[in-house]
Amino acid sequence: MKWWGWGEPDIAFTHEDKPALRGFIERVLGVDIAQPTTRPPRFEELDVPAPRLPDPLRAALEAAVGAEHVSTDAHDRVVHARGKALRDLVLTRRGDLGRVPDVVVRPGSEEAVAGVLRAVLDADAVVIPFGGGTNISGSLEAPADEGRPVVSVDMGRLNRVLEIDERSRIARVQAGILGPDLEAQLNARGWTAGHFPDSFTHSTLGGWIATRSSGMQSDKYGDIADLTRAVRVVTPAGVLATRPVPSTSTGPSVREMVLGSEGRLGIITEAWIHVHPVPERRIILGYLLPDWPRALEAMRVIAESEATPSVTRVSDARETRFSFATRRSPTLLDRAKSSALQALLKRRGIDPERMCLAFVGYEGSPAHVDRQRRAVGRIVSRYGGLRVGASPGQLYDQKKFDTPYIRDFLLDRGVPADVSETSAPWSGLQPLYDAVIAAAEGAFARLGVRGYIMCHLSHSYHAGACLYFTFAHRPSGDRDALEEYDEIKRAVQQAFVDHGGTLSHHHAVGTEHAAWLEQDLSPAGAALLRGLFQAVDPGRNLNPGKIV
Amino acid sequence: MKWWGWGEPDIAFTHEDKPALRGFIERVLGVDIAQPTTRPPRFEELDVPAPRLPDPLRAALEAAVGAEHVSTDAHDRVVHARGKALRDLVLTRRGDLGRVPDVVVRPGSEEAVAGVLRAVLDADAVVIPFGGGTNISGSLEAPADEGRPVVSVDMGRLNRVLEIDERSRIARVQAGILGPDLEAQLNARGWTAGHFPDSFTHSTLGGWIATRSSGMQSDKYGDIADLTRAVRVVTPAGVLATRPVPSTSTGPSVREMVLGSEGRLGIITEAWIHVHPVPERRIILGYLLPDWPRALEAMRVIAESEATPSVTRVSDARETRFSFATRRSPTLLDRAKSSALQALLKRRGIDPERMCLAFVGYEGSPAHVDRQRRAVGRIVSRYGGLRVGASPGQLYDQKKFDTPYIRDFLLDRGVPADVSETSAPWSGLQPLYDAVIAAAEGAFARLGVRGYIMCHLSHSYHAGACLYFTFAHRPSGDRDALEEYDEIKRAVQQAFVDHGGTLSHHHAVGTEHAAWLEQDLSPAGAALLRGLFQAVDPGRNLNPGKIV
Repeated sequence: MKWWGWGEPDIAFTHEDKPALRGFIERVLGVDIAQPTTRPPRFEELDVPAPRLPDPLRAALEAAVGAEHVSTDAHDRVVHARGKALRDLVLTRRGDLGRVPDVVVRPGSEEAVAGVLRAVLDADAVVIPFGGGTNISGSLEAPADEGRPVVSVDMGRLNRVLEIDERSRIARVQAGILGPDLEAQLNARGWTAGHFPDSFTHSTLGGWIATRSSGMQSDKYGDIADLTRAVRVVTPAGVLATRPVPSTSTGPSVREMVLGSEGRLGIITEAWIHVHPVPERRIILGYLLPDWPRALEAMRVIAESEATPSVTRVSDARETRFSFATRRSPTLLDRAKSSALQALLKRRGIDPERMCLAFVGYEGSPAHVDRQRRAVGRIVSRYGGLRVGASPGQLYDQKKFDTPYIRDFLLDRGVPADVSETSAPWSGLQPLYDAVIAAAEGAFARLGVRGYIMCHLSHSYHAGACLYFTFAHRPSGDRDALEEYDEIKRAVQQAFVDHGGTLSHHHAVGTEHAAWLEQDLSPAGAALLRGLFQAVDPGRNLNPGKIV
Repeated sequence: MKWWGWGEPDIAFTHEDKPALRGFIERVLGVDIAQPTTRPPRFEELDVPAPRLPDPLRAALEAAVGAEHVSTDAHDRVVHARGKALRDLVLTRRGDLGRVPDVVVRPGSEEAVAGVLRAVLDADAVVIPFGGGTNISGSLEAPADEGRPVVSVDMGRLNRVLEIDERSRIARVQAGILGPDLEAQLNARGWTAGHFPDSFTHSTLGGWIATRSSGMQSDKYGDIADLTRAVRVVTPAGVLATRPVPSTSTGPSVREMVLGSEGRLGIITEAWIHVHPVPERRIILGYLLPDWPRALEAMRVIAESEATPSVTRVSDARETRFSFATRRSPTLLDRAKSSALQALLKRRGIDPERMCLAFVGYEGSPAHVDRQRRAVGRIVSRYGGLRVGASPGQLYDQKKFDTPYIRDFLLDRGVPADVSETSAPWSGLQPLYDAVIAAAEGAFARLGVRGYIMCHLSHSYHAGACLYFTFAHRPSGDRDALEEYDEIKRAVQQAFVDHGGTLSHHHAVGTEHAAWLEQDLSPAGAALLRGLFQAVDPGRNLNPGKIV
């Protein structure tokens, strides 16, 4: 993981193979992306504070995990200082590193994790579990004024699928496993977990659980809360272990308290999760809907139908235009297809400026897939849409994990871009969407900046869906760009909770969303969480300051 | 509700229209059920303690709910003293009424509920929410030594469906509504909640939520935890209100803390729940599987198939024999059918002593129902089973809510009968079943009594299913029948947790199952619950002594 940005050092987003992108960004933001205008500093330029690690704590940590797995290396500590929120990226690029942890430890067993926690509690230090470091809600950063030693627990060595109960279709997996390693180990035996968040390549099972993650195929596989059958957590009261039973009536759900706990109840070491046979057939088809209201309605009707697709996703007209602008240099065949598509759109009366691109995925036996496709196709037609074949879906499927790299590309060009997502009942999606767009446009106007906001619906449920917004602006130069970003982000988040949405569908609370917690859950709901954390961790040693 | 038993005063179970039942019970328990041998006392014979209700508390309660809704009537208080656990029935029939509440209040609004809670906290009294009074885990009874005034809050006046959001398929419903009232109000507008626990006719939405209930059609509609989208709860910190969003990432799930809270966090007043259009077609078909291992395996394979039945339920050979013994007096046509069935079983090599009766339900469009039926039929055939048509399913469907009346019938004949249910991963069901049967048989042998235990699987999930055991014994006469019952119940429950099951799939913890909580959730898990309750209710005013 880059210390200053997303992902692998040798991977970057580029506009050079996307001929329409430069013009598009110029048009919507007034920014020329041809060349970077700013670059992250070199690591050597950073002023990394020296670690403050008392000898007894160091000795106890070394005893717990082995001296070779206790690191006070500056680069290591900077990588573990934060996640990848837009704020994190901007500040880090400025050389403002925040409260860098004093030490990074890498336990190789649950016993080692327990040893780390004991050492931390004995020393009245602070412990922050670290999975892949992709969190975008501020969940990984110690409070700026934290005077006690801060220990980052990198779970990366706990990266194995321990067993698969094939008859029960569950697997016992260590929490530090990265998405690709999980799938590789499962696939080798014919199984998949089916959990594919945007962060997949760099996030871990423990991180997904700690933040209530959701994957692209959640319509079939469920959110992480659905597919996590049992958890093991090292807590101050010992190892908390629930059983991998399918359903239980044992009081308030302890399993569901660990889900979303962001390190405040302890350190997740293992989980039993659902697995599925790798599907016989898997396709993602593209569709075009004539406008956003009909796009939303088509997705709602699919959700209430007897069809059971694995993915339902539709972009608003704004995101559809962006999506078309990121197409790679077309081949001759592509050009011919594109002309045919234009002609078809014209015949069907679909306005390219208002149309919405949808992806619907299907998995299972060939007969099942065919039946779902036909059922969805009928609904799309009823709302004036048409199928555009498998190639846009394939493209989406291939590039889906590359999206986070765009933020670094844009930051190199001085443009802060970020995401905010929510969920709401079906009946509230259109008003919520309208309110969010208006709120963002209002913020752009107040700031006097060019800005753009776009949205897609993903993760359909019985009662509603997730709306996922992406927004960017061209800083005015008059104010701190981060202050301007904050005003936009605040406007979007406030519109969520003012219009029946939740503060986040799957990105957790951390510090970025904590301001809206009482509005979302009511003051009494927030009080319940405060009471729980206080009861488990009276000394505030476990990732303090997060959630509430 | 009868003060001494289940349900309506004018409804009772009878063996008189079931010609095979007397012989069956004689055979397995050595008890002749022809005539009652004991009857509950008359209410007038009871020694109901006088209420201890300080005047200021009475005044505050009257101010909160209105004087006409504050009752210290003896009958009212006895009905509200307990639920309907076997222990409750036995003790109450003996005239041992336990810690009868001092007052029953019936709030008509959320504000009134809040007023009751304030009054209780101000007076340092104890409050116990009461839905339909069907709980069988001891969740409704005050501790025997509770010296403070005990207030039972009967939620029965809060019995309305407040709104239906048809586009989002959710309804806002008051917590005190009984099952039949809920369905009637929803059905009138074309909707159903699809939640049908055995207790349906006498239990309430709030009770289902407070105990993590599960209905017979949970395979399609989900458990109450799945179908409850949002809750409103009067807590000491004010009204806790979550939003009816389909999924959210707001820390440990407050919604899932309220589910199963058994009154320990507050009083549930309202919920948003999933609703579904009344299905176009709905059938339950009967099947016979040749033996229990193949019956379990067939259910597992159905669960992992692409078929999506609404009900999957199969009885072991013991329960199948019981089920056949409760058939009503046959008509000539029935006799003819029965002979044909015998002949068919013989041809297929199915041993009537080992065969297992299954019910599988289907709902939806005719095409969908037909497809599911065919898919399930193929799986049943693969495991040597056969379809026995719709009439056993219809019978099951009609009499499913009458089962609880049998316990009173048997108690009238001196026979304690009860249920214990669990859930476990598919791979663990057969070993768990074997262990439970052995544990119960062991207890019967140790006690030197005739006993019977039988089981069905219901509620299939991705990773496992519920096993639901019913057991009865003929008391030896040498010891207290309740002590003997306890030894059997303990053996069954201990086998659950010793073999990977949970202490209860859907009957809550209360006091009856609290002894196994640490074994189920681990000591650290139980500590989490203890901490939560202590934080919310430091004075132990909210249904103290339950769960942990």
